[in-house]
Amino acid sequence: MKILITSGGTTENIDSVRGITNHSTGYLGKIIAETFLSKGHQVTLVTTKQAVKPLEQANLTIQLISNVESLLTTLEPLVKSHDVLIHSMAVSDYTPVYMTDLEELEQVNSPAQLLSKKNGETKISSKSDYQVLFLKKTPKVISQVKEWNPNIRLIGFKLLVNVPKAELFDVARASLVKNQAELIVANDLNEITGDQHIAYLVDETNDIKAHTKLEIAEKLYEKVTAHD
Amino acid sequence: MKILITSGGTTENIDSVRGITNHSTGYLGKIIAETFLSKGHQVTLVTTKQAVKPLEQANLTIQLISNVESLLTTLEPLVKSHDVLIHSMAVSDYTPVYMTDLEELEQVNSPAQLLSKKNGETKISSKSDYQVLFLKKTPKVISQVKEWNPNIRLIGFKLLVNVPKAELFDVARASLVKNQAELIVANDLNEITGDQHIAYLVDETNDIKAHTKLEIAEKLYEKVTAHD
Repeated sequence: MKILITSGGTTENIDSVRGITNHSTGYLGKIIAETFLSKGHQVTLVTTKQAVKPLEQANLTIQLISNVESLLTTLEPLVKSHDVLIHSMAVSDYTPVYMTDLEELEQVNSPAQLLSKKNGETKISSKSDYQVLFLKKTPKVISQVKEWNPNIRLIGFKLLVNVPKAELFDVARASLVKNQAELIVANDLNEITGDQHIAYLVDETNDIKAHTKLEIAEKLYEKVTAHD
Repeated sequence: MKILITSGGTTENIDSVRGITNHSTGYLGKIIAETFLSKGHQVTLVTTKQAVKPLEQANLTIQLISNVESLLTTLEPLVKSHDVLIHSMAVSDYTPVYMTDLEELEQVNSPAQLLSKKNGETKISSKSDYQVLFLKKTPKVISQVKEWNPNIRLIGFKLLVNVPKAELFDVARASLVKNQAELIVANDLNEITGDQHIAYLVDETNDIKAHTKLEIAEKLYEKVTAHD
């Protein structure tokens, strides 16, 4: 089976020296990749320069991306040529549009006017005491996967922070339906500490609990290969 | 000689999953540290979890920080107990205050009113098409060094992007005077590509050019030990 895995977190640049990053070490994606590789599957890992990665080995191809735009471009052809996508990457939901100081913001009639502006400088000046950064929503990568390849099996991830279990499962099941995923791995940042990584493999009817990154990888492996 | 080196880039959190990062691999600081260690000096390296680091070895102490606040707390006692500070870290100049959507911004009389607000959520909602992030200036770390320890020898760094050489040197010499530094390593992002890293060791009268990270480290070593 040809397995496509995404891992790490994207960074959206503010200017040439600053960016907004989604915190993610890439460690979970690495372990998932290693689990499939150890059973002889072909794995393509789409990740970032900063993320931890498996060692170079037979059957593993690594492709590096940086921001949502490069993720979309890289992922589309890969989604069309793989059987399964395990999309564990933390993808930025906003990207910078324009950064300015309070003075300029106070002078416009409507803040929305500033959305059409662009920063000319390569490194935004740091003289003002305050800055205002306008951001716009990025395209949702996961919702395009089935448009690119209706036959790919999709496993998504949902990370929330400090929510009741019922809410976590509701959000995961909404994503399951909306993105035509087979499974959503739902986790809460508060339950990821040290060696512990609590996650739930959520489908329409079940929510199987895992306690470590290795257990998440092994349970994902069982789920994905159970169809063979 | 007890050498204190900072490297890598700080991250200022927006919420528990997103942060603003200054891009820096920590590679230059690593090479500077290794150069001093190889000659038998004691080195304390203040860096980040993400940065590349020298291997564990005798005479090397590593202390991890994340944001400007933790950098200040960690650095103050170290500055007081070291002979030289080589401050190559890319330090965030702004830190997030409040993130909201355009709607709330349009409703206030003055944008400055929002500067006293705080985000209650641990993960800011990503429903709106646009978001506005208010940021405030961080305390300048380098300008506090001589207040903490008037006798420490200070070497600063200045990174600009695509500026004329005269401007780069002017900015470096202004920083030299303002921060009572002995030397500013001035570089332009446009001249850092692949194995090339052009930098100038700028003092009141000279601007010695280096072409690689290793040459920067070696020239710094010569400068620092020339006083012995």
